[in-house]
Amino acid sequence: MTDHHDSWIRLLRLSLPPPSLKDNTGDAERVSKGTEKALGHGKVRMGLPLMKRVPSLFREHGYDIRVIVYKGEETWRLVDLVPAKDGNALYGLAIDLGSATIVVELLDLLGGRTLEQVSFLNPQVEVGPDILTRIHFATRNKGLEKLQAMALDGINREIEGLVSRHRIRRESLVAASVAGNTTMTHFLLGLDPYGICREPYIPAVNRPGIVLAREVGMAMHEEGPVFVFPNVGSYFGGDMVAGILASGMDQSDDICLLVDVGTNAEVVLGNKEWLVACAGAAGSALEGGVAEMGAMAGPGVIDRVAIDARKGTFKVTTIGGLPPKGICGSGLIDLVAQLFLAGMIDTRGRFVKERCGDRSKDIDGITHLVVVPAREAATGKDITLSQTDLDRLIRSKAAMYTILTTLVGMMNIEFSDISRFYVAGTFGSYIDPRSAITIGMLPDLPLERYKGLGNTSLAGARMALLSEKARDTACRIRDRMTYIELNVNQEFMNLFSAARFLPHTDMDLFPSVKEQLKVHNQ
Amino acid sequence: MTDHHDSWIRLLRLSLPPPSLKDNTGDAERVSKGTEKALGHGKVRMGLPLMKRVPSLFREHGYDIRVIVYKGEETWRLVDLVPAKDGNALYGLAIDLGSATIVVELLDLLGGRTLEQVSFLNPQVEVGPDILTRIHFATRNKGLEKLQAMALDGINREIEGLVSRHRIRRESLVAASVAGNTTMTHFLLGLDPYGICREPYIPAVNRPGIVLAREVGMAMHEEGPVFVFPNVGSYFGGDMVAGILASGMDQSDDICLLVDVGTNAEVVLGNKEWLVACAGAAGSALEGGVAEMGAMAGPGVIDRVAIDARKGTFKVTTIGGLPPKGICGSGLIDLVAQLFLAGMIDTRGRFVKERCGDRSKDIDGITHLVVVPAREAATGKDITLSQTDLDRLIRSKAAMYTILTTLVGMMNIEFSDISRFYVAGTFGSYIDPRSAITIGMLPDLPLERYKGLGNTSLAGARMALLSEKARDTACRIRDRMTYIELNVNQEFMNLFSAARFLPHTDMDLFPSVKEQLKVHNQ
Repeated sequence: MTDHHDSWIRLLRLSLPPPSLKDNTGDAERVSKGTEKALGHGKVRMGLPLMKRVPSLFREHGYDIRVIVYKGEETWRLVDLVPAKDGNALYGLAIDLGSATIVVELLDLLGGRTLEQVSFLNPQVEVGPDILTRIHFATRNKGLEKLQAMALDGINREIEGLVSRHRIRRESLVAASVAGNTTMTHFLLGLDPYGICREPYIPAVNRPGIVLAREVGMAMHEEGPVFVFPNVGSYFGGDMVAGILASGMDQSDDICLLVDVGTNAEVVLGNKEWLVACAGAAGSALEGGVAEMGAMAGPGVIDRVAIDARKGTFKVTTIGGLPPKGICGSGLIDLVAQLFLAGMIDTRGRFVKERCGDRSKDIDGITHLVVVPAREAATGKDITLSQTDLDRLIRSKAAMYTILTTLVGMMNIEFSDISRFYVAGTFGSYIDPRSAITIGMLPDLPLERYKGLGNTSLAGARMALLSEKARDTACRIRDRMTYIELNVNQEFMNLFSAARFLPHTDMDLFPSVKEQLKVHNQ
Repeated sequence: MTDHHDSWIRLLRLSLPPPSLKDNTGDAERVSKGTEKALGHGKVRMGLPLMKRVPSLFREHGYDIRVIVYKGEETWRLVDLVPAKDGNALYGLAIDLGSATIVVELLDLLGGRTLEQVSFLNPQVEVGPDILTRIHFATRNKGLEKLQAMALDGINREIEGLVSRHRIRRESLVAASVAGNTTMTHFLLGLDPYGICREPYIPAVNRPGIVLAREVGMAMHEEGPVFVFPNVGSYFGGDMVAGILASGMDQSDDICLLVDVGTNAEVVLGNKEWLVACAGAAGSALEGGVAEMGAMAGPGVIDRVAIDARKGTFKVTTIGGLPPKGICGSGLIDLVAQLFLAGMIDTRGRFVKERCGDRSKDIDGITHLVVVPAREAATGKDITLSQTDLDRLIRSKAAMYTILTTLVGMMNIEFSDISRFYVAGTFGSYIDPRSAITIGMLPDLPLERYKGLGNTSLAGARMALLSEKARDTACRIRDRMTYIELNVNQEFMNLFSAARFLPHTDMDLFPSVKEQLKVHNQ
């Protein structure tokens, strides 16, 4: 059992004194006062929709009731009351509102347990895979309403499935917590995203706070609270605030770093004393680069590659162990790292044809390397890595390393001062830090400092749903954060150019890679 | 000019710093922070509907804006923002939600001036003139919704007229204050009135507080606050709380009494130290008695009667000086007082036929007294007072006097301890206290202690709309009030029987009437 003293959504049993000629407290006030007494502190407010229902609930079920109450921004607020005999259950939703994938998790709020997690492609992808296209669409006639409806319809459809599979009444879904980037949050709430992508990059709202399900249009209890994670700014959204919450770095004595490679590369550095962040909006090379490959992660996709340089054999493993059909971000990083160690790619990121042998092919004048021949692939076609793919990955990894270098430099620390290096996202769950270091994407730190955290946006949303302290912490993280706008100036470009080598022009930054190369070349 | 430091609805001009790369505060937060600074204290909240509109308002009109803000129950809240150049006006509504008549007053909130007052028959009268019929109707299928729509449609139609006559945009109507009895308030808000008329007489809600115009359905700014006066209980509503506020008795050093004869007789006694109240639900004789006649007040209706006992002539004055067509409550009290002094009615309330002479007529075995003969009446028919009318009035006045005696007795004071005796309502504006004393309806106090206050419900609503202190005072009055349920016990019935004489069985209670009778009988 979880300790629920910290829950901001509560189910309280009240045995109210029935009214009499001597006690003519109104029905609504009887509930509010009883709840205040049960909570032991503070004021409790009730909205008009519930006021309307109290008298008939009392008439039908008497005064032995349970109330569902949540801590609002100023006071506690009543969501509903139910007859005491009607059981003892309360459910909520944690939602990761990704621009590519939306994850909805059903939780038992009293037990603090996850009951089911469903994920689906964000239906807005139909409008455009990237955020800019969607923002432009939103400013067209009824575009915003359409985007909002797309996300909501998708979420509501999944909710229908969840409540039906778990035999839950829709009204028992009484609270939700949503973490998404700034644009996704704007779309969900129907907020004007116009300023997000235009200098000086101002969102409509940074702290939506708690809104009611009926205001958003979510298919749960209409009066239920929806906590929407605050954004730091246009390029640093509630998903990252949730990520920081999930990592716990904001409570750490030592310096930690959190990196999330989604549509952008977002980086946070800090500890319990300070938090700074930046996002890779400047690193346009990352967009549609690593992100696109990462999004492809799924059954049959190659996530690990090992090359035996002597025999020239490639050993691939796929998600679910199925015949290979493609390659995801983490597999690609493994592949390039292995190719580099095997001498099949040089330090400038060019294929070394004489080392690639049969595996090298020219298609339309561009060199391709066959990773899996057609006969072994699920698709019946060669799975290849082209020079174009490779160039794109190198630009991405160079941008990532440059952003990390810049941020660490601004704070006047060294990479070695970072005691914990968290990698968030699907990408973070699969990535092999060893390979990421080999290609010079991540700094050359002892491997045990790296930790993949999985979906931190969802984890943070779940925490804020279950705990008042976590919800408050999320808001505090947002307020504590210093967001640094990255300038793509000459210095940044110099660093970027130096990082466009494998692993880097300055090999002294990567002693472990030097060591590996020595071993491979023996 | 009124002092507006006390207004809870304000229009503030803000000249906001435009956003920059160095100041990426969200649009909504820019407005909230600017407003907080302008107010100089406290937090300011914004709802989702306004959050949605801020970015485009900024785009179209820039950062020189005015905000409309009101003090909510916990924090200040934003209603809207308008470009600074779009002028400087703010309007509100004070509403007296009577069961017979609804009055809507349009106010200029910045000048604190009344612009126009309109009154109309409560459309719910169609369902039934009395409250009980309407409550029963409300509990039938969709009855409550219908009653709510009737009141709302009526109010909204008048609002349309007001805004069009005064060339005001509907959105400039930003606040309202509503005072009505408990049942009318329940109907307007769509609250279940079931418990109001059933023991132990529990309303759904006593403190509706501030609701938004869109929640109620009023045709003004959707996000504008509607302050709904709190009820003390089922039989003591917000109209009376407003009345007390308007009278100022709650601030008085001396003991005051306020009586309102509407559908019920409602009485409040007290001063700045204490307030007690009771309502004449027990005095069923009043229902449909004085009230019905009082409701008839209007052009051509007799409001004053003087009888020359020697000549046997009746001099009537009518409202507006038009030919007489009926008689209202105050006229009736004048008439009966004059008939009594002229010896045409005896102390038991029976017509003295020999004194009435030609004016006495038997219709269907019931004695009628012709007040205005057919040839002088606007209706072309005799305007008469029947023994039945007379009996009903006497029951009403006896109930009123009994209620007053009971309440004063409970507080262990004498009528003479009352320094101010306020009579509220249309009835109170027209009534001649001299005549009311003559028939023994009101106690025999020096006339200068009586004061007619007119529509105190509307006056209180207006005060609470214009002043934060008045709004707070209304809530404090409600909380300070001790409501006494009148028991129709043997003692009450004994007092009632003694009061069914003109003016009373105990003539020593009415020394001034004794004096008058002496003069008349000389």
